Amino acid sequence: MDFKLITLGVSAAGPVPGRWPSGQFLKTAKTGFLLDAGEGIQIALQQNGIGWGSIDVILISHLHGDHIYGLPGLLTSWGLNQRTAPLQIIGPADLEPYLSTVFQYSHTGLPYPVTYKVVDFDTQGEHVFEDKDVSVRTLPLRHRVPTVGYVVAEKDRPRTMRGDQIKAFGIPFQEIPAIKDGADYVRPDGSVVPNSDLTLDPPPSRSFAYCSDTTPTPDLLPFIEGVDLLFHEATFLHELKEQAAASMHTTALQAAEIAQSAKVGQLILGHFSPRYGNLEPLLKEAQSVFPNTALAAEGRCFEVEYGGRKA
Amino acid sequence: MDFKLITLGVSAAGPVPGRWPSGQFLKTAKTGFLLDAGEGIQIALQQNGIGWGSIDVILISHLHGDHIYGLPGLLTSWGLNQRTAPLQIIGPADLEPYLSTVFQYSHTGLPYPVTYKVVDFDTQGEHVFEDKDVSVRTLPLRHRVPTVGYVVAEKDRPRTMRGDQIKAFGIPFQEIPAIKDGADYVRPDGSVVPNSDLTLDPPPSRSFAYCSDTTPTPDLLPFIEGVDLLFHEATFLHELKEQAAASMHTTALQAAEIAQSAKVGQLILGHFSPRYGNLEPLLKEAQSVFPNTALAAEGRCFEVEYGGRKA
Repeated sequence: MDFKLITLGVSAAGPVPGRWPSGQFLKTAKTGFLLDAGEGIQIALQQNGIGWGSIDVILISHLHGDHIYGLPGLLTSWGLNQRTAPLQIIGPADLEPYLSTVFQYSHTGLPYPVTYKVVDFDTQGEHVFEDKDVSVRTLPLRHRVPTVGYVVAEKDRPRTMRGDQIKAFGIPFQEIPAIKDGADYVRPDGSVVPNSDLTLDPPPSRSFAYCSDTTPTPDLLPFIEGVDLLFHEATFLHELKEQAAASMHTTALQAAEIAQSAKVGQLILGHFSPRYGNLEPLLKEAQSVFPNTALAAEGRCFEVEYGGRKA
Repeated sequence: MDFKLITLGVSAAGPVPGRWPSGQFLKTAKTGFLLDAGEGIQIALQQNGIGWGSIDVILISHLHGDHIYGLPGLLTSWGLNQRTAPLQIIGPADLEPYLSTVFQYSHTGLPYPVTYKVVDFDTQGEHVFEDKDVSVRTLPLRHRVPTVGYVVAEKDRPRTMRGDQIKAFGIPFQEIPAIKDGADYVRPDGSVVPNSDLTLDPPPSRSFAYCSDTTPTPDLLPFIEGVDLLFHEATFLHELKEQAAASMHTTALQAAEIAQSAKVGQLILGHFSPRYGNLEPLLKEAQSVFPNTALAAEGRCFEVEYGGRKA
């Protein structure tokens, strides 16, 4: 069961040589998510072999150009490439009129159904998507325009039955679902076998949080506590903290403090200012506070293993 | 005095690995033109070292996405890179509302002035721009949506004075402009020296025609006759001529026939269907009719020399 992130675009603002603007791909068991879609995202997806068949849901954090200018071309190309599968797009209210206006002016029709879900900026942690395995909630970010992050988390799994005990107690097949949900087993003679003798803890649920553009905000913490992977923007080094504050962005140091406070598994830095050719100083700055930090990079894969975090 | 074309994007429809959608750069003596702006054009310009200081005018042929989806990002990035120089954009009427709507939804303001000139589809060969050295007229193309091409031509130059004759006839300085414009020289004794004894023909004016998306059309011929460089779309090989006709595109063979009929200097093929990995068959097909044909390619430069065509 997949739970992996491929970072596709890590540049703040426009594309620069070797770096695309924002765009990340998260593969879960049943659903593939694209998070933001800056200009060129369709090329980044091509380069990583991610076709339209892999993406079911697009999550958009906010409507700055470097997060949405790749959408019209991507959706158009999927049409030209015979996509028929439905697509769901989740984001701010203006996303649908933005796309429909662009498609109207560019004489474009899509041959597959698109449904829109508008996020509610007044509801922190709004549930915006779920399938059998995962659910998606919004995260309260603070930027110059209305912005949300997203946390994608696997649902709690049923407990794992111990096969030896099924046999030992002769448990009938029809009792098993209730026991997996935590029930004890009542034997035909009326005696009770406690659930803890019959089941094992299920593998922990995996989770990923995406914090695109934001000033550092403690509002976030309750929603991202303990996530396995935290993508947090780190537009600047901390020596430019005034510039970060003025533009409502975060420094690498501040991102690491968020990761530390939220006790996340791994911090992934992204959304780098084009001024930084060498990104190692951002990494080192963050690692001084939160050692398990990595740099997002075009095509880099971060996988969380089933049954436990991958270091 | 520059007159050179750099082809930046040669893919029909979406970008494919190594090929951008439509975008070409033409440098003339005073003015730099960008012709069409598909997704990624800002990266193609970066890769060729063409900054905002080099582009004064954007000419847009039509509003299909593969010709305009790069405009919002390009104009935004120029703003972030402190462009202050005015920009003129010439194209169909919906271009301004398209851009202003995108910028409204994406919370984008440009810190430099942009003026729009709307082309008139009822006027064939409309003059849409001129500076001291060149003028630009529209070309009547026939595509699925209203589409124009553009021909950029140097103005006729004044005749070249023969220095030896100025001296021999003692021609006063103030007489020279009239003689350069073709006047004879009347000597103080009333005798006349014919202009042909005093001047040489000026270097021929150079010209470039851009025919983006079109079914082959003879309407074009009077406007492109004898141009030095003709960029003509060649989306398909002639074996797919029915598909070309249905989508209102041109085959390589048909583009060559246009070039031959118009007696152009050199034909440059572009706008290739993504189905063609190897473009040599398109080149060979066209060359069988019009030998001086070349393939456009990302970053390829076609220069017309001052004083005569470059082979």
